[in-house]
Amino acid sequence: MTQQTTIHEVKAKAQAARAALPAMNRLTTAQKNVALLAMADALVREQDAIIAANKEDLERGKVSGTSASLLDRLKLDENRIAGIAEGLRQIVELPDPVGEVLETFERPNGLHIEQVRVPLGVIGMIYEARPNVTVDAAGLCLKTGNAIVLRGGSAAIESNRRIVDVLRRALAGTDMPPDALQLIEDSDRRSVDAMLKLNGLLDVIIPRGGASLIRNVVENATVPVIETGAGICHTFVDESADPEMAARIAFNAKVQRPSVCNAMETLLVHRNFAAKHLERLLQPLAEANVELRGCEETRRLFPAVRPATEDDYATEYNDYILNVRIVGGLDEALAHIGKFGTRHSECIVTEDHRNAERFLQEVDAAAVYHNASTRFTDGFEFGFGAEIGISTQKLHARGPMGLPALTSTKYRIRGNGQIRG
Amino acid sequence: MTQQTTIHEVKAKAQAARAALPAMNRLTTAQKNVALLAMADALVREQDAIIAANKEDLERGKVSGTSASLLDRLKLDENRIAGIAEGLRQIVELPDPVGEVLETFERPNGLHIEQVRVPLGVIGMIYEARPNVTVDAAGLCLKTGNAIVLRGGSAAIESNRRIVDVLRRALAGTDMPPDALQLIEDSDRRSVDAMLKLNGLLDVIIPRGGASLIRNVVENATVPVIETGAGICHTFVDESADPEMAARIAFNAKVQRPSVCNAMETLLVHRNFAAKHLERLLQPLAEANVELRGCEETRRLFPAVRPATEDDYATEYNDYILNVRIVGGLDEALAHIGKFGTRHSECIVTEDHRNAERFLQEVDAAAVYHNASTRFTDGFEFGFGAEIGISTQKLHARGPMGLPALTSTKYRIRGNGQIRG
Repeated sequence: MTQQTTIHEVKAKAQAARAALPAMNRLTTAQKNVALLAMADALVREQDAIIAANKEDLERGKVSGTSASLLDRLKLDENRIAGIAEGLRQIVELPDPVGEVLETFERPNGLHIEQVRVPLGVIGMIYEARPNVTVDAAGLCLKTGNAIVLRGGSAAIESNRRIVDVLRRALAGTDMPPDALQLIEDSDRRSVDAMLKLNGLLDVIIPRGGASLIRNVVENATVPVIETGAGICHTFVDESADPEMAARIAFNAKVQRPSVCNAMETLLVHRNFAAKHLERLLQPLAEANVELRGCEETRRLFPAVRPATEDDYATEYNDYILNVRIVGGLDEALAHIGKFGTRHSECIVTEDHRNAERFLQEVDAAAVYHNASTRFTDGFEFGFGAEIGISTQKLHARGPMGLPALTSTKYRIRGNGQIRG
Repeated sequence: MTQQTTIHEVKAKAQAARAALPAMNRLTTAQKNVALLAMADALVREQDAIIAANKEDLERGKVSGTSASLLDRLKLDENRIAGIAEGLRQIVELPDPVGEVLETFERPNGLHIEQVRVPLGVIGMIYEARPNVTVDAAGLCLKTGNAIVLRGGSAAIESNRRIVDVLRRALAGTDMPPDALQLIEDSDRRSVDAMLKLNGLLDVIIPRGGASLIRNVVENATVPVIETGAGICHTFVDESADPEMAARIAFNAKVQRPSVCNAMETLLVHRNFAAKHLERLLQPLAEANVELRGCEETRRLFPAVRPATEDDYATEYNDYILNVRIVGGLDEALAHIGKFGTRHSECIVTEDHRNAERFLQEVDAAAVYHNASTRFTDGFEFGFGAEIGISTQKLHARGPMGLPALTSTKYRIRGNGQIRG
């Protein structure tokens, strides 16, 4: 496509989404739930067409040499589609935050003011080649009365096109306007660039994907962004830590799923703990094929460790690699986390109540743990029943984002003729 | 200054502010209040030096032909300094939102999760030539445990430099680190440009000022921004409106203080109301020297009205000018507001309960009024006891922003060895 066509498509779809907002705003929770259930049913009913479109993506991917792990993320089969549809049905079960009155106050002049939750408006989602995100994001945004403009990765374009076609046709049989759900089909990078500047048409952009995708959005968007993702998470094993618990938490934080943002990248160990128990911490990790990189002191105590560099401490591996550093105590651990942490999830393992409270108070991160794995930073683990992403910024939402993170508020003020003096 | 010096100053000051965060984070509310009171006392004690510095700004302004109204905003005297100091003392009286636990939940696996309010971090304020904003913003940000980097207009540079010097010396005698308060002294435009890109050092930028200042910040910042300001506010006088009340509200919304963002710019009048009562609405406005611009129908009923253009409907006058348009009913009014409104403050005057509720529900704006002047959109009028600005965006905060808008949250999670399965 030419640049003009690209911008035209993006703008026209955002406008169509925006035009659907008044109708979205009038829907009851029951009407929205009926629409979501229709979407779930349609996905299952039309799964053959979706799987066929997905095959096209997979074959194109194989020809262009896409990695096996990426092809696996891209792949849809009956089981996965059933799981995706089930995800929509779970969103139906969640309480609808829209309309909730957060605060009510009566002013001395008789004005009655209430702050009420409303949809954000039009949400732009920019993400990579996971077609499940297409449905997931649509479900969460529509449940909260928003319109959504999806821009998925080009590797999944045939799958996304077919899925969105199925979902829009499903909506056509309900009270929800199909135009509330839009897919940018132009897979040119310029369609992303165009979205980032659509102030007035998009209310917010949520990027989901790797570091370079998120950096591009944060650095170039003029539309407000909710930043998600990057996590260089630490576990600090304090002097008084229970050795068995420390080993269990460290192992889980690194090995249970290394590819995700809440996995541990650096293990900080109190010098006096290390002197007695370092092997107990590191041996299971080494046996699980975790490549260990450590400070000199670590290497003296546990020789099977390569030297760690400053760059290593600043790297989100998302892989079977772990930095290990021995520190003199809590202050040194806090300084390390302050310097290298990305304010995502941080943990202290300790039996010392005062140190635990200082860590919980002083560490600046979305989620700070005492005696539990950082892997719990997740909307489902927190009991939100859903997750649109994990915010790593401080504005609007921080940490796992459930449905309320997809809402804004407005003030409704009722008077009887008040004027300002 | 050279470009290098500019960037160096901005970065060094943001780093110094950031380095003060751990100490800010350890302060109790009482310690923060002592610091604010010391600031208030110092302003009064050193008022002569501040007034002398302000004179330099005023004289430079006169020479360069600054308008009388701008010089008036810039001017400081004993009364105004007393008022500014009193503002700080009022902030002392406000409850401290930091540390407030917003939610607590216990998970089936025994994890105890609490969401607690924390400071945003380092806040960048970019504003124009009103030295009272320097103190006001400092007081609000420091009360909430944030560090602040101020960048005021060059016209007030001597005043700001002296004020910040006085405030920092006052802090030196308290537990609050003076480095939490920084002023960018380089008045080159490039210092603004540098601030806008300081991701990692600044957590948020709040612009306060005219449309072009805000547009520059929104369009060029990669740091998250809280947009404030622009208001094209409407009052819709419905068929059933009480004529006396409608005239009173319309007059107040336009004339009480036309220069501010919550003043009315366009009056929408139901055709049947206009047929009987248009003169009653417009005559007092005309007598108060409000220039009226209207649709053809308005002009037939009230000839002393110039024709209004589409551009007029899209203009924030902030002046004694008002557009008047006659509409067929609520739907036409809603469509006009949807097209030309800036989602700031909108009002319906009606005795029809159903129309009032539809307006309150369907208008997408920070503050929606039934039978009250839009001029009430203000942190003090809402009872917040303070206001850092009026957010016109939907992320994070919407409408008048009090102290809680200057906070973020974090999750504190307490466990006893939980790992994820």
